[in-house]
Amino acid sequence: MSAPVFLGVIGVGGVGTAFLHQLAPHPPRPLHSNPPLPDPAYSPSIPAAEWKTASATPSLTKSGALSAEEIANYLSSAPGRSILVDNTSDPALAASYPVFLRKGISIVTPNKKGFSSDLSLWKDIFASAAQGNALVYHESTVGAGLPVISTLRDLVATGDEVTRIEGVFSGTLSFLFNTFAPVGGACAGRKWSEVVAEAKELGYTEPDPRDDLNGMDVARKLTILARIAGLEVQAPDAFPVESLIPEELRGLDGSAEGVKTFMQRLGEFDGQMTEIKESAEKEGKVVRYVGSVDVEKKEVRVGLQRFDKDSAIAGLKGSDNIISFYTKRYGSNPLIVQGAGAGGDVTAMGVSADLIKVVQRLQ
Amino acid sequence: MSAPVFLGVIGVGGVGTAFLHQLAPHPPRPLHSNPPLPDPAYSPSIPAAEWKTASATPSLTKSGALSAEEIANYLSSAPGRSILVDNTSDPALAASYPVFLRKGISIVTPNKKGFSSDLSLWKDIFASAAQGNALVYHESTVGAGLPVISTLRDLVATGDEVTRIEGVFSGTLSFLFNTFAPVGGACAGRKWSEVVAEAKELGYTEPDPRDDLNGMDVARKLTILARIAGLEVQAPDAFPVESLIPEELRGLDGSAEGVKTFMQRLGEFDGQMTEIKESAEKEGKVVRYVGSVDVEKKEVRVGLQRFDKDSAIAGLKGSDNIISFYTKRYGSNPLIVQGAGAGGDVTAMGVSADLIKVVQRLQ
Repeated sequence: MSAPVFLGVIGVGGVGTAFLHQLAPHPPRPLHSNPPLPDPAYSPSIPAAEWKTASATPSLTKSGALSAEEIANYLSSAPGRSILVDNTSDPALAASYPVFLRKGISIVTPNKKGFSSDLSLWKDIFASAAQGNALVYHESTVGAGLPVISTLRDLVATGDEVTRIEGVFSGTLSFLFNTFAPVGGACAGRKWSEVVAEAKELGYTEPDPRDDLNGMDVARKLTILARIAGLEVQAPDAFPVESLIPEELRGLDGSAEGVKTFMQRLGEFDGQMTEIKESAEKEGKVVRYVGSVDVEKKEVRVGLQRFDKDSAIAGLKGSDNIISFYTKRYGSNPLIVQGAGAGGDVTAMGVSADLIKVVQRLQ
Repeated sequence: MSAPVFLGVIGVGGVGTAFLHQLAPHPPRPLHSNPPLPDPAYSPSIPAAEWKTASATPSLTKSGALSAEEIANYLSSAPGRSILVDNTSDPALAASYPVFLRKGISIVTPNKKGFSSDLSLWKDIFASAAQGNALVYHESTVGAGLPVISTLRDLVATGDEVTRIEGVFSGTLSFLFNTFAPVGGACAGRKWSEVVAEAKELGYTEPDPRDDLNGMDVARKLTILARIAGLEVQAPDAFPVESLIPEELRGLDGSAEGVKTFMQRLGEFDGQMTEIKESAEKEGKVVRYVGSVDVEKKEVRVGLQRFDKDSAIAGLKGSDNIISFYTKRYGSNPLIVQGAGAGGDVTAMGVSADLIKVVQRLQ
């Protein structure tokens, strides 16, 4: 159980940096192999002694970038099993997972792109893993470090019938609605545009808040869960996704100027959101942005829904996620997982825990 | 990844039967080995073709029972890695896990006894596993199939600091208090002894309800979690455990007559429980039976506590468990796991999922 395993780590953003810190108690050892590895001039690796500075000098990884094929060749030349940890959100790298997997290189990643794009890529990834006898772990693609993917896979693998999955899957949208329409204070009078602006200030949204408000991040997570539960979802736009971007503002471009104009004009539409909130309030409910998979009806939906004030979803705090699994074995009361579903540290924790499991299986 | 793995399964009670049904899609293959296995007359095994009837004929396993040492010798004679699945709650079998582990036989079990008795046994189990290069998985010892042990181990392994664990760890006590002191109807007027009698009727309690009411089952679960979190808890009675058995009835013996007398006389003490309920009600709270581990203070406690009516613990339904992990990374909002924490099917699911993981690591 002590064969060396070789790691390739790509990405030194928020998650990548936190991941490297979590790896710190287990510093990599420099590799002296026989036969020698390819010429260092060709090598995309950061010298082991310099790994700690890598997060401070991202140019180290970006300079002289090689193609996925070249990186895969490099990793597969290691004298043992190797693992690619992809801490980016790069769709191009995700699209080349099959190249790595077919060469026997396992994948550990929080990058949603590979699992939530076209169904053909999903199928290619898992077929390539089987072909290359390699592993794919991606816990942090849904709910960050929360045990969501692993729990769903355990339910499916042990023969339970998952009938429905429902929850709040975006920390940003959780914060926005918990603040805009709190259970105890719907009359607090906060305007939607003010809450969005505050969340942007606090760094709770993407640099362009429209990337949260369009619902596509949630749609990608639901695509992943639905596929694990057995539904052949073609793409994250193949089912109804309610966008919170007012129709009138959808024409704005993605430039810094576009973001600015969007934030300036969002207030013009506060009345629409207030109406949605007050209409729920009249029923004694609150509105939340949720995703759901109905496995039996083969329906996936993402958008606003009303919830009783004493429900678990209504009672969510801060920017927490909540995910409920309804299954045959668990009956009317679902299996629920709840907690922070975003942030560098907890996302990296999911990656680190996956890495430990993959290393244990490869050794 | 396809070396055969050999399974020994002991226990055909509620969990054992459900486990065998979950294993049904993967029926064991009869073994033709070279050199041949020990003389069948000596073998404790049920012929593979008869495994389905095993649950209906428990005498098959009980007749001619061999010592743990003999069973371990038999399993270790298999021409590959082997796993003992212990679906009993037998303390004697649990005490001999080290014998199996030192021979390289991995353990998968929902049996709490090995992990919650004297600290010396806990240490012996994990030292023996390291020595024998064997694995120990016991997800179902806490919260049945809920991802509790695995989540805690992931938090610890990735370097998070678990500061506090708190929750409702007994399905039986969850049901009793959710029924006796519901959030919405403290005035419903149900008497404690009536609720206990109803739970016994429904099969929600142990045959002797005192085995639930004495709190030791919860104490054993807390012992396990505290140890994984790093506390050296000597034994499940080494910290305060509040018993719900009235002092005056603690002298009754464990016979059927003792159970009957206990149930008959429990009503004499309804006033005490009503007082506890009403006293909480005056503060606008409800009373629940919880366990907690304060890792920093090194304190473990099991007993009654009051909770705000809008808290997650107060809002629990039916016989659900809830477990909150407070950690440095997760901050003020804990990571929460909630759902059915008892029952044959969901307990067996934890065992089956563990078995899959062990097989994956051994292959």
